[in-house]
Amino acid sequence: MLKGIKISTTNCGLKYKNRDDLLLIVFDQPASIAGVFTTSSMPAAPVVWCKKNVKAGVARALIVNAGNANAFTGKEGEEAVVKTANKVANELGCSANEVFVSSTGVIGERLKVELIKVAIPQMTQNFSSDEAAWNKAAQAIMTTDTKMKMVSRTCKIGDKNISLIGFAKGSGMIAPNMATMLGYIFTDANICSKTLQILLKETAEHSFNAITVDSDQSTNDTVLFFATKVAGNHEITDSHAPELSEFKYVLNELALELAKKIVVDGEGAKKLIEVEVEGARTNEQAKCVAFSIANSPLVKTAIAAADPNWGRIVMAVGKSCDEASPEKIIVKIGDHPITKDGMKHPDYVEQLVHKYLTGAEVKISVNLGIGSSRWVVWTCDLNEEYIKINKDYRT
Amino acid sequence: MLKGIKISTTNCGLKYKNRDDLLLIVFDQPASIAGVFTTSSMPAAPVVWCKKNVKAGVARALIVNAGNANAFTGKEGEEAVVKTANKVANELGCSANEVFVSSTGVIGERLKVELIKVAIPQMTQNFSSDEAAWNKAAQAIMTTDTKMKMVSRTCKIGDKNISLIGFAKGSGMIAPNMATMLGYIFTDANICSKTLQILLKETAEHSFNAITVDSDQSTNDTVLFFATKVAGNHEITDSHAPELSEFKYVLNELALELAKKIVVDGEGAKKLIEVEVEGARTNEQAKCVAFSIANSPLVKTAIAAADPNWGRIVMAVGKSCDEASPEKIIVKIGDHPITKDGMKHPDYVEQLVHKYLTGAEVKISVNLGIGSSRWVVWTCDLNEEYIKINKDYRT
Repeated sequence: MLKGIKISTTNCGLKYKNRDDLLLIVFDQPASIAGVFTTSSMPAAPVVWCKKNVKAGVARALIVNAGNANAFTGKEGEEAVVKTANKVANELGCSANEVFVSSTGVIGERLKVELIKVAIPQMTQNFSSDEAAWNKAAQAIMTTDTKMKMVSRTCKIGDKNISLIGFAKGSGMIAPNMATMLGYIFTDANICSKTLQILLKETAEHSFNAITVDSDQSTNDTVLFFATKVAGNHEITDSHAPELSEFKYVLNELALELAKKIVVDGEGAKKLIEVEVEGARTNEQAKCVAFSIANSPLVKTAIAAADPNWGRIVMAVGKSCDEASPEKIIVKIGDHPITKDGMKHPDYVEQLVHKYLTGAEVKISVNLGIGSSRWVVWTCDLNEEYIKINKDYRT
Repeated sequence: MLKGIKISTTNCGLKYKNRDDLLLIVFDQPASIAGVFTTSSMPAAPVVWCKKNVKAGVARALIVNAGNANAFTGKEGEEAVVKTANKVANELGCSANEVFVSSTGVIGERLKVELIKVAIPQMTQNFSSDEAAWNKAAQAIMTTDTKMKMVSRTCKIGDKNISLIGFAKGSGMIAPNMATMLGYIFTDANICSKTLQILLKETAEHSFNAITVDSDQSTNDTVLFFATKVAGNHEITDSHAPELSEFKYVLNELALELAKKIVVDGEGAKKLIEVEVEGARTNEQAKCVAFSIANSPLVKTAIAAADPNWGRIVMAVGKSCDEASPEKIIVKIGDHPITKDGMKHPDYVEQLVHKYLTGAEVKISVNLGIGSSRWVVWTCDLNEEYIKINKDYRT
């Protein structure tokens, strides 16, 4: 699979029974690391820890628990992270600052860190690196996910073969109480941490940061990107290096595919919806309108019912963009023309659009007719199951 | 009821059968008028018409149809408004600019203005002014509303008795396709239009503009405020006039009660939720955090299930306010303490909070601990019925 990485999973009993809920990944050699995190002002303790330590750019291990977010848990929560990192560091003989920690699960509940500490020594006796181990890793971090989310790619840097593997959990903030999107990407390429950080930030903007399920942002969102540097290529220290072009392309592909897997597994979701806004004055404006459409419960319920209720798209543009005007905007659903000159397009045929909307993938395009900027985001439809799952979670 | 006002309703056949769908209100004498409107950049044709004509401050009539929003209908939509206003003006012998027009219903469908024009002459032969007529008025503008929404008050200006009556329809943007909140307030007080506009703007900010059902803003939102000026008080031309103090108080009461009726009648809603944010640096900050909580589908589904899942409130604060910090915020549900020092409050008893949440009215309070500004908004819980109603609307 990917050289230089060892994986161990176990059930430590934090919340789940009969399934692994703790993941430990160890790097044979110090790996480069980059990270992007929730912008919440209420970040979970492990997020604060990772944010601080990612700056040094060196990773020896990653440990992730599912079932408890260790968010809004005060000093005790911070100490739980330190205890976890110390325990792993002691076992491996590295610095605690090189151990990256993530948590996902209920907010505001004390994390029983003793259970994690007890499990760690056993885990370090029980490593694997095969495909089954990677599958187990992707499964151990799941909460309400119904599907494991893993994507792998290969490419070349110079004449060296490079591997990339990523896995993720969650569905943006739609998971009940499990408010977390976690993503991890690994490569064996030899790339310095600073370059890795630039690459991750660029790619996250159009993948993990371009998805929404319910507009609720988590306290725990984390994407970490590790490079084990064992592939044998010359170390890359410039994100604009020409030999990175294929790597960047497959990295973007991998991240976007992972992000889409999260949306498709949104609670109760039946459809993947792509929202493209072009003809905007700025990228920011295009993004704002795209998210307004993608977050509109009325748009999402209409698509759930395959109802060509396009007035709701116009509504979502109108509420989010002062500069837009009815005469200028052009709306399309799939390839079907919807609006022209501030009213329904003369070629609009409701039955055809309805038929298109019965498919599993739906594209909405809006041209604002103001400028030349463009943004694309992805979301899912909104069904009764979303409400049911989120209402029933603790009852 | 309220002197100087004549009411007529009829079924003109735009969409509904067996119920009135057209309302005409005529003022015996030219009334003062004020209005607040949707900020959407895709405003409906009647909104554009009212916005333009409200400036002159004179109203002779109001005509409202239910079943078609006349939004995103191009030039033909604009012409439909002009034709409607002209027809009413001809019948009454006034200027078309003194006729105010509202529409509510499906977006993007051509308005069959002929049906309205045909109905108008008959309506002007058939006026009433009694309580039954007011009830019919409030009912004729309903779309998916399950309850009529009307509130009346009396007060004094100087030694004169003053009446206020308001009615409204809709539930913010939650009505399926019927994306409209319409509100009308009438008084017999003698108040100039300029003062009326100031009073309406102030009162709307903390009533109609402080409610949310699903964060979707309509293309047709309109609140109009008419003063028939027949109560006999000296004309009031200053919004700070001391004799207005009781009037302002009951106007605020009336507007807030109407606004709450809209939220309570939200599709599928079972509970009224009040969200109070205090200790903010600015009003804008308090408002932003309050709406973040009130629009969070996770907060709203938790409350629907009477689940004290308070981590979702913390999440909604975190995603909306950079300046907030876990250590400073204090969360309460009803009178129950929830958080302290960045973690669960030591006196928190889940069972008690659960019991509180089973009630029909729920209050969430957040103190940001930053400054002294405060804002309150109202919303409803989010149930499966919301999705069902909005999916099934046109299928």
